[in-house]
Amino acid sequence: MEIKVVRQIMEWNENCHAELQTYLNEKKILMINIMGSPGTGKTTFIIKLIESLREEYNIGVIEADIAGKIDAEKIANMGIPVVQLNTDGACHIEALAIKNMLPEFDLDKLDIMIIENVGNLVCPAEFDIGEDLKLAILSIPEGDDKVEKYPLMFTRADGLILSKYDMKTYFDFDEDRVINNALNVNKDIKIFRVNSNKGEGIDDVREWIKAKMKI
Amino acid sequence: MEIKVVRQIMEWNENCHAELQTYLNEKKILMINIMGSPGTGKTTFIIKLIESLREEYNIGVIEADIAGKIDAEKIANMGIPVVQLNTDGACHIEALAIKNMLPEFDLDKLDIMIIENVGNLVCPAEFDIGEDLKLAILSIPEGDDKVEKYPLMFTRADGLILSKYDMKTYFDFDEDRVINNALNVNKDIKIFRVNSNKGEGIDDVREWIKAKMKI
Repeated sequence: MEIKVVRQIMEWNENCHAELQTYLNEKKILMINIMGSPGTGKTTFIIKLIESLREEYNIGVIEADIAGKIDAEKIANMGIPVVQLNTDGACHIEALAIKNMLPEFDLDKLDIMIIENVGNLVCPAEFDIGEDLKLAILSIPEGDDKVEKYPLMFTRADGLILSKYDMKTYFDFDEDRVINNALNVNKDIKIFRVNSNKGEGIDDVREWIKAKMKI
Repeated sequence: MEIKVVRQIMEWNENCHAELQTYLNEKKILMINIMGSPGTGKTTFIIKLIESLREEYNIGVIEADIAGKIDAEKIANMGIPVVQLNTDGACHIEALAIKNMLPEFDLDKLDIMIIENVGNLVCPAEFDIGEDLKLAILSIPEGDDKVEKYPLMFTRADGLILSKYDMKTYFDFDEDRVINNALNVNKDIKIFRVNSNKGEGIDDVREWIKAKMKI
């Protein structure tokens, strides 16, 4: 009985995900789902990515958090359309939440929709939310064993951002271990090295995203 | 219907939690539930805590991870009884899992049972697992906005460990913001500053735990 309920939720979610993908293809909007642990640097990365893309493309952002609107305020301060989605305790977002948020945007004017998922290396990886690209962010201070311990996120991501990359000086971080483990579970994953504070490495991500654009 | 199922799970979990607490009180075992984001430094903290307590007390450890046995191997190498609990994708552990693992230990010989929860700042906070103390670990690289964004963990913790404290030099981390926010949601929370790599600050945690011992 209990298992039945969970399976239906996943099935409903996949249906909604497919529906969103069709709709966003018609609108020629690329949706990017940004995931990673709390404090891995998702918001700072998004801000620098927006700065590097905003002259060419119109961008919208959905910020998902358990509580508060700290991140959405940062994006709004840039003059970028943003909605804060509070999950009230839920550890991830599902496709239906995105579907319900989209009417808050003028979609005919958008080329890219960036979703900042709830800070969590586990649950968000299980749910497709209408995205074209999943980006997993892993910061150097989190350590080099995370792919082995939280494999699903890295198995499902299209891109892996090694963030706070300048911190390699101060942490014992075996980069080869992470990259080999990531490629082992996901041979097509694209790996980037980024220091968002200084904008280093953002150009590579921008070029990769540009090649995926629908317009 | 769906809500009913979830409420029953929480109710069953609370019953199991209470049963475990009664049982562990009889056995005079203090159980500590260690929680925090992936890469916040839980395992390194536990290793240093064990080193500082093992001469006086007998300690057992349950390591919970989505996959793998990396952390359990580190504890086993210290000669400490340890069991690795793989959740196969689940983002937290529940009391029943602990109940099922306890027979793996010779409980008459233990004074302290340390549980390293799944790396996750969200879901583990919702589930009591028979513990006497909840310790939330937050590392400096994760940033100073985490209490506002993930309040439940800090609301429910007895102690807050600010880990990788030596990294304050390299990160823009407003310690007052974190402490004020933590005390705002949990006026009794005890705050510690720890650099586990060098063992700094571990003595304060040890003395606090010693005052809670059942023997």
